[in-house]
Amino acid sequence: MPGRLVVVGGGAAGMSAASAARRTDPHLEIVVLEATGYAAYGLCGLPYYVAGLIESVESLAAYSPEFFRRRRRIDLRLHARVHSIDPATRTVTYSHDGHQRRLGYDRIVLTTGATPVRPDVPGLDDPRVFTVRSLPDAISLRSLLDAGRLGRVLIVGAGYIGLEMAEAFVHRGSTVTVVEALGQVMPNLDASVAALVEEEVRRQPVDLRLGAKVTGVTRVGDRLLAEIDSDEVLVDAVVLATGVRPASELIAGARADSRGWLLVDDHMRTSVPDVFAAGDCIAPWHRVLGRPAAVPLGPAANKTGRVAGTVAAGGSATFPGIVGTAVAKVFDLAVARTGLTETDARAEGLPAMATEVTGMSRAKYYPGSQPVHTRMVHTPDGRLLGVQMVGSGDGVAKRIDAVAVALQAGLSVSELAEADLAYAPPYAPVREPVLLAAQAAVRLASQPQSPRAA
Amino acid sequence: MPGRLVVVGGGAAGMSAASAARRTDPHLEIVVLEATGYAAYGLCGLPYYVAGLIESVESLAAYSPEFFRRRRRIDLRLHARVHSIDPATRTVTYSHDGHQRRLGYDRIVLTTGATPVRPDVPGLDDPRVFTVRSLPDAISLRSLLDAGRLGRVLIVGAGYIGLEMAEAFVHRGSTVTVVEALGQVMPNLDASVAALVEEEVRRQPVDLRLGAKVTGVTRVGDRLLAEIDSDEVLVDAVVLATGVRPASELIAGARADSRGWLLVDDHMRTSVPDVFAAGDCIAPWHRVLGRPAAVPLGPAANKTGRVAGTVAAGGSATFPGIVGTAVAKVFDLAVARTGLTETDARAEGLPAMATEVTGMSRAKYYPGSQPVHTRMVHTPDGRLLGVQMVGSGDGVAKRIDAVAVALQAGLSVSELAEADLAYAPPYAPVREPVLLAAQAAVRLASQPQSPRAA
Repeated sequence: MPGRLVVVGGGAAGMSAASAARRTDPHLEIVVLEATGYAAYGLCGLPYYVAGLIESVESLAAYSPEFFRRRRRIDLRLHARVHSIDPATRTVTYSHDGHQRRLGYDRIVLTTGATPVRPDVPGLDDPRVFTVRSLPDAISLRSLLDAGRLGRVLIVGAGYIGLEMAEAFVHRGSTVTVVEALGQVMPNLDASVAALVEEEVRRQPVDLRLGAKVTGVTRVGDRLLAEIDSDEVLVDAVVLATGVRPASELIAGARADSRGWLLVDDHMRTSVPDVFAAGDCIAPWHRVLGRPAAVPLGPAANKTGRVAGTVAAGGSATFPGIVGTAVAKVFDLAVARTGLTETDARAEGLPAMATEVTGMSRAKYYPGSQPVHTRMVHTPDGRLLGVQMVGSGDGVAKRIDAVAVALQAGLSVSELAEADLAYAPPYAPVREPVLLAAQAAVRLASQPQSPRAA
Repeated sequence: MPGRLVVVGGGAAGMSAASAARRTDPHLEIVVLEATGYAAYGLCGLPYYVAGLIESVESLAAYSPEFFRRRRRIDLRLHARVHSIDPATRTVTYSHDGHQRRLGYDRIVLTTGATPVRPDVPGLDDPRVFTVRSLPDAISLRSLLDAGRLGRVLIVGAGYIGLEMAEAFVHRGSTVTVVEALGQVMPNLDASVAALVEEEVRRQPVDLRLGAKVTGVTRVGDRLLAEIDSDEVLVDAVVLATGVRPASELIAGARADSRGWLLVDDHMRTSVPDVFAAGDCIAPWHRVLGRPAAVPLGPAANKTGRVAGTVAAGGSATFPGIVGTAVAKVFDLAVARTGLTETDARAEGLPAMATEVTGMSRAKYYPGSQPVHTRMVHTPDGRLLGVQMVGSGDGVAKRIDAVAVALQAGLSVSELAEADLAYAPPYAPVREPVLLAAQAAVRLASQPQSPRAA
């Protein structure tokens, strides 16, 4: 393709798109407009940067801006905030160095990502209220911690990001309160699995309050007084981890789902001609649901970015979809899921049942063997829908991958039960947890008294 | 089924068969004849017992003999060595308590396992020459170590069992020499991957001699003088880890492959009526090879035992086969494989090529991230044949499972490259090693200059 490709957003998806475009067409002009002063950094690393496990913020970036500019000949413009896109004239308007600028494009890739949801609570506009989807916020939190100025922190939201941040602050010696409006931690897990994660959090010096809401935040000198229902806590900072919404408002008229996530075909084309989208602002195809669904995570951002960049530059590539795999470290627990939870499945109207078993991470006699809890969700006739796993042993996190591949391949629970998985006493028991769960699911699904699919 | 089921062998496969038979038929008479004084123990644990990581030999057993006798009503007879089976009269002859006994059967399950190969070298009948497929040998080695009497040990064979034993002796402070006739360690890996394992062994206090042979062993007082080609070493014990052959001689006339491994259908029936076989004495179906192939390992022993016992007791079950998955701990390395190596594939006449990449076990910026070497074997048109992985990071061992499921499902390298695998900085990089390798394989397979399948 001759001409100019503009990529809006220089995060994981955007730089993947730009790099893939360069590989596809050595002659294309490629401009990336990034609102912040950073490119190609992984948001997923922010809790570990705040925790001090990662020394410099530069190491969170896949490559330096100079690498992209020189080695990949990508015109990466930092501090370039896009204000509007006009598909009729194929023009982008953005501000840079205090000036309003216009830039024409032949094709454009939107990788504008997702924006933290700010609850409608008075006082959340205070500068001591942070989110964890932004590098500048993470840098501020780290500086305050390094200066010894975050003795007490309130985290709003007990999803995986809220809990990763709780771990980071505990690691730094802060006193941590976590407030979650729902009755469980990790709303993307079934309640019984979330209860195991809750136990782990309660073993830590964390004041966890479920079914509670922050109703207001007031500045008191250098601190914040947060009202939590009828209680009050005085903290040095508030961190919001209450979910995200798509930053998809730049492109008017593009097809989107009811919550605003952009809908794309499997080449990452939006419904607007020559406008592609990738990363956290889209709802990609979900293979298990059989429809688009937004699960904004790093791997899909990279993959959809690569497809968008390749196709926008005139190459061919397809993104076949996600199955909803995710893993998080919550203190000493690895918490993994793939496919659908039982809650997901029922919300979708699927006839779902769940089998829960506890296996071990290693041979039971091998030192360091730890329980691995596995919850397998399936239909009454044995279709595999998803798995959740929680455990502290080595290798729990990557155990979910075998199930992710099984979901991709459409294996049934009985086919998964037949899998030839790796065994050696230091790494796995003969009764591998994934297989134990699949065998239990086979037995449950074959019971004549089981509820049957309508 | 009314009548009596006799199981020959009380190891993993035999006790799985007996237990499955009991679940299938509560009224069946089930007799297990086990030659040693131990039942249901895992051979795979022996190196760790010798190393002293596992205190008591009893903990290697899945359950105690009393558990099987009382809870499962299995007539488990220890020290009962079977001498012959007469399918014409359906009679087993065995010795027990110094007496020759006969026992009729309606159906019989052979789980006689595999026997260590003893090289044809003078002096290997010395009692200070041990194998590692027998609990009594492991108990002797452990006793000698505990008594401080194994200052120097010679291990013959550098396959995974030889190297696990080398690690055990190093752990106990012995001086270890390992002699391997081939030019590489781990003959079941391709040479480039074996070279990484060799590097790890050479970082240890192990005198590793490749392409070398033990030509004779002579008793000198309490020690053994071993001739290694033109050299000699004086050691306290010799451990043979030179492979196994099937212990299939008990059943005359049953179909077997050229090396004597019993051939069974997918219900574990041999070609002799009412004689079933399971575990290490059979060549089960290999899904990638599309033919039977012996890969004697614990998980298949359990699974084939379960199928044999279920079907022999009148139930229904099938064993769909293995894909050749295995993992071993070699000092600080996890060494895993599934499917075929390039050597395997070429020996089978398959057009094979291999892609080798080095990824990381965690996000590159996360503390403790370690290299993971992945070698992917595939056909020029992108059929996935197998993967070998070597690495020291957490979770390397179970990474192979995703590939094992992909092989089972018949995914191509490009389908595997699309897999939605788990990502979080403490557990995996965005550029997950398995996906990196699959992406590289896709590129290699799509090059027009690649050799094509004939």
